[in-house]
Amino acid sequence: MTQVIVLNGGSSSGKSGIVRCLQAVLPDPWLALGTDTLVEAMPASMQTSDGGIAFAPDGGVTVGPEFRALEAAWLEGVAAMARAGARIVVDEVFLGGADSQRRWQKVLGDLRVLWVGVRCDAAVAAGREVARGDRIIGMAASQAEVVHRGVAYDLEVDTAHAESMECARTIAAHVV
Amino acid sequence: MTQVIVLNGGSSSGKSGIVRCLQAVLPDPWLALGTDTLVEAMPASMQTSDGGIAFAPDGGVTVGPEFRALEAAWLEGVAAMARAGARIVVDEVFLGGADSQRRWQKVLGDLRVLWVGVRCDAAVAAGREVARGDRIIGMAASQAEVVHRGVAYDLEVDTAHAESMECARTIAAHVV
Amino acid sequence: MTQVIVLNGGSSSGKSGIVRCLQAVLPDPWLALGTDTLVEAMPASMQTSDGGIAFAPDGGVTVGPEFRALEAAWLEGVAAMARAGARIVVDEVFLGGADSQRRWQKVLGDLRVLWVGVRCDAAVAAGREVARGDRIIGMAASQAEVVHRGVAYDLEVDTAHAESMECARTIAAHVV
Amino acid sequence: MTQVIVLNGGSSSGKSGIVRCLQAVLPDPWLALGTDTLVEAMPASMQTSDGGIAFAPDGGVTVGPEFRALEAAWLEGVAAMARAGARIVVDEVFLGGADSQRRWQKVLGDLRVLWVGVRCDAAVAAGREVARGDRIIGMAASQAEVVHRGVAYDLEVDTAHAESMECARTIAAHVV
Repeated sequence: MTQVIVLNGGSSSGKSGIVRCLQAVLPDPWLALGTDTLVEAMPASMQTSDGGIAFAPDGGVTVGPEFRALEAAWLEGVAAMARAGARIVVDEVFLGGADSQRRWQKVLGDLRVLWVGVRCDAAVAAGREVARGDRIIGMAASQAEVVHRGVAYDLEVDTAHAESMECARTIAAHVV
Repeated sequence: MTQVIVLNGGSSSGKSGIVRCLQAVLPDPWLALGTDTLVEAMPASMQTSDGGIAFAPDGGVTVGPEFRALEAAWLEGVAAMARAGARIVVDEVFLGGADSQRRWQKVLGDLRVLWVGVRCDAAVAAGREVARGDRIIGMAASQAEVVHRGVAYDLEVDTAHAESMECARTIAAHVV
Repeated sequence: MTQVIVLNGGSSSGKSGIVRCLQAVLPDPWLALGTDTLVEAMPASMQTSDGGIAFAPDGGVTVGPEFRALEAAWLEGVAAMARAGARIVVDEVFLGGADSQRRWQKVLGDLRVLWVGVRCDAAVAAGREVARGDRIIGMAASQAEVVHRGVAYDLEVDTAHAESMECARTIAAHVV
Repeated sequence: MTQVIVLNGGSSSGKSGIVRCLQAVLPDPWLALGTDTLVEAMPASMQTSDGGIAFAPDGGVTVGPEFRALEAAWLEGVAAMARAGARIVVDEVFLGGADSQRRWQKVLGDLRVLWVGVRCDAAVAAGREVARGDRIIGMAASQAEVVHRGVAYDLEVDTAHAESMECARTIAAHVV
């Protein structure tokens, strides 16, 4: 039985929409957690501290040791939730590509995980970033390719060519 | 010179995204106002009052005389803003089809208006409604066709077949 | 009959809470509009443009000619809504003190207006700004006094010493 | 060293504001997680399912076995985050009073926990509920007393008589 679904994709690639559709089409209730949940749970000062997370005006995102320390504990906790029986969809942005995936692989251990790449052409994602109106312009383009570097997936979906609901149904078909 | 752009389409047809892209691509600053702005400006009690606005669990929306009275004044005010020199994009849901358009035509009078229909296949809009996660399920499907009944447009865009940014560029090309 | 209630106070002084309580306690439905509605209606670019509105990291807010031009039309429109029969609560931050009030007085003309000052001790407002978590730290303290300079009120309320609901009842008692 | 702070109080008692102030005044970065985070992570269908969580129009909240199952795993995960080194502020509504506390005590085990009761007079909380504008009217009054039944605290704060920041400083003084 699949215990965790990890969706990885750049900002504005459409992950959150897929997650909500997945929660609607999967017969069991799944918890949706992700990078956004973590960032929101952190102190506001984390976004102005040197060791925290910094969003540059051009859309660049850098994270420091204080962020990494809380993130490491967060990952352990999400894995523990899955071990305790909750089925979890993780909505992630692998800024470090393969390194980011390894961090998750380490904590998820022997849990049954479905790795999903959420692709979206950089230009399309950049347009959607403008349409959303609540993101720093430039994040979508700068993350579109880099988050997938060296990452291994069980399947990939492409939101530039399929609706969120269609992507969700494709993913759901791989959930056992 | 175009003074007002009226976008009409059903819930989850993608109007708001187009509006934000329009504001980004049009060289002048345009104000974005719409049904959502008006509903938010009303008292919370308007959503529980008999004469107000009611959102049924199946996505049906009905409005009563109290809502209509405030809406009529709101329309006059938006027209006055345009007459005072602000260029305005109106994001609307013509629940009454041609009747709704007539209400706007009456207040806009001799202002130069670009009427834009925002189409989206009902099934696609229904999927996007699930993906958004903040709308009552059923609104998209129930409004997809009815809001366009008898409405005359200068141009129409279809968000099931073009990205918000592409639709915005098409519309912007008609703004003089 | 009172047609417009203008609430003026600094950021985090508690205006929005009073407005929602006012809408709940006043027997007629009143529209709530204000600076936040206007800023949200403007293009995102207005916040990066030289002539727009700038939020400094220390909480300072400056507005330029492009912002003023749209604001002037917005004021005309809000006044037109009131003339068309809507009763309106305006939630404002008079960054220019008496000058800001004059701009409103000019457009409101002979409408019956209730001017309300919303006071809140700078230190208390600064604490509430932290508690809200969605405002730039420093705005509350920098605006607490300056927005009231030279402004004439029909009544004043103080949210450091009374709950929003209590302030709303006090104001409602002055609405005729 | 305090590893977890659990704040318990009814809806609109002011917990979230205290949490943000705590995150600002505590020298280390603390993660803020709570009932709201959990409810948001659940599928939308959880709010319409028999075994999920139901918000009655009068403000009553009832939870069923499906909700409890995910919640149990969530609690285990939050405890695991604390064991992995993250310091965590939990923002909770003990609908079951002492029973709810026991559930947390069981998962927190030998972690060092500071139990904080957040009191707010029911009438004051009800007024703030109206002022917030985003909660079902009646939740505040119905939860104000019941959530504290049989619960043991290390300290209690009262937001009807002290600002969020002041409460946060009082709590921070007990964090070791």
